Amino acid sequence: MPLLVIGSVAFDSVKTPYGAADEVLGGSATYCAVAASYFTNVRMVAVVGTDFGEASMGLLRARRIDVSGIEVREGRTFRWSGEYSDDLNERRTLATHLNVFESFQPRLSPEDANVPNLFLGNIDPDLQSQVLRRTRPRLSACDTMNFWIEGKNEALKRLLAEVDGLIINDSEARLLAGELNTVVAARRLLSLGLRFLVIKRGEYGAALFSEGRYFAVPAYPVERPVDPTGAGDSFAGGFMGYLARSGETGGRGLREAMIYGSVLASFCVEDFSLRRLGALTPGEIDGRAGELRDFLSVDGPSSGRP
Amino acid sequence: MPLLVIGSVAFDSVKTPYGAADEVLGGSATYCAVAASYFTNVRMVAVVGTDFGEASMGLLRARRIDVSGIEVREGRTFRWSGEYSDDLNERRTLATHLNVFESFQPRLSPEDANVPNLFLGNIDPDLQSQVLRRTRPRLSACDTMNFWIEGKNEALKRLLAEVDGLIINDSEARLLAGELNTVVAARRLLSLGLRFLVIKRGEYGAALFSEGRYFAVPAYPVERPVDPTGAGDSFAGGFMGYLARSGETGGRGLREAMIYGSVLASFCVEDFSLRRLGALTPGEIDGRAGELRDFLSVDGPSSGRP
Repeated sequence: MPLLVIGSVAFDSVKTPYGAADEVLGGSATYCAVAASYFTNVRMVAVVGTDFGEASMGLLRARRIDVSGIEVREGRTFRWSGEYSDDLNERRTLATHLNVFESFQPRLSPEDANVPNLFLGNIDPDLQSQVLRRTRPRLSACDTMNFWIEGKNEALKRLLAEVDGLIINDSEARLLAGELNTVVAARRLLSLGLRFLVIKRGEYGAALFSEGRYFAVPAYPVERPVDPTGAGDSFAGGFMGYLARSGETGGRGLREAMIYGSVLASFCVEDFSLRRLGALTPGEIDGRAGELRDFLSVDGPSSGRP
Repeated sequence: MPLLVIGSVAFDSVKTPYGAADEVLGGSATYCAVAASYFTNVRMVAVVGTDFGEASMGLLRARRIDVSGIEVREGRTFRWSGEYSDDLNERRTLATHLNVFESFQPRLSPEDANVPNLFLGNIDPDLQSQVLRRTRPRLSACDTMNFWIEGKNEALKRLLAEVDGLIINDSEARLLAGELNTVVAARRLLSLGLRFLVIKRGEYGAALFSEGRYFAVPAYPVERPVDPTGAGDSFAGGFMGYLARSGETGGRGLREAMIYGSVLASFCVEDFSLRRLGALTPGEIDGRAGELRDFLSVDGPSSGRP
């Protein structure tokens, strides 16, 4: 079943100890949609500037993503630039130019009102709520960041009472909950009305809190990470894409989706932009998912690494 | 089968956001031995000063630990003091007084030569090697720290060629391997002759690398951590204790041992010193181990938390 992804599309300039990339395709909606495109039909609602160009649009179309909801507005596309520490765990933003994204208003088509699966990338929580109320999907999840946690806390909490799930970074989960302990923070966030909460922990994997259950998936151990940009959004895309395809959104489905989130994030970090994430085979994805299941298995036969 | 534990015994003064404890029983051998004592007979070889006293010795004896290998020497017992950050992830050492531990020479008894299981806590790697050569156990593992990695690198590498396993913190594993990527670091360390490598990641759990396999166990999600001091040593104790009891040191046994390591570490952090770790029931340990297995299970019924 289709997945609608709302969020940012950007040109990123990134420097890591393993190289640099200049003005490459990025943004939360881009990474999420491309990751999800391996599982289901994906439609993006986003905004770009007149500088976006056919080459970039072609990268999305190559993944059979419906780009008709990407509005092209007069002006420049969102730009972000940053650099990472030697161990890739710290990142420093060098510049953020929101450009046309600053006044982004998601434009939904009439068919979007019936979309069964929705991912609300990190945008103004009032806009996230608007989209959610206009679509009423079977399954919805959102992301957010410290800017909205601090600046639009009430709006964000209203959103969390309506959305099914929140997929969020560890540090932002703690900030949002106002609590340093992850377990207590998780309970507090769930009490706002969420059915599930995914806390992303970068190289340490991710944890799922849902309906009284806890599940932890490790990050797939990548030997040559190049650029972590977009890994969290790729996790969300793999996670939501799997749930959209399987239609199973109970505990078993959520746990299986965690595996695919981790797998897609692991491919994302292996190169800049979509260079690796955009060129996967189903066999590569299933292979890594099988390995990850083995990494979790106390009993079963384990394959593989390192 | 019995486990011999060599390492430090100390009086710790610790301040955390949840309280403070002054001159309480600590040290790597203490935490490791007490954690292991729930699984098997444990003998400690360590040194304390004449200030150690019967009350402290009684805490070890209460766990039926054989303390006859703890030498009492003229002088003061090792003292350490430190404080932790609000999220307990950073720790700052305020003072270290090695006292009698500075000239520690493990004194083995004739029976120690036949001990089947050995844990070499963090001491001079030359001493660790000496003990290993004089005991030739069925199963051996060691820990180490940056002080020895930087100061006695060659001796440490000779030890790693002889010992079965290394149980080490994430940052120290990277330092020892001279490699920032954990997977590459793990492969490099295994190539020194280790049969297994456990990388401890604090609140993110631990990872096992062994014989081409990878296994990750999450930390048990503790709601009210009080003091992380000794958690890594308690992990080693739970891990080695389980292996000593089960006698199964293949992949399945190592993975099961990871669960018990994580369980014992989780109890350790719930209070200062041995207040929680020293007063567990088998039911509490097995209960948490069952929960952790559930947290790893994609398919199975999950119980419980948060």
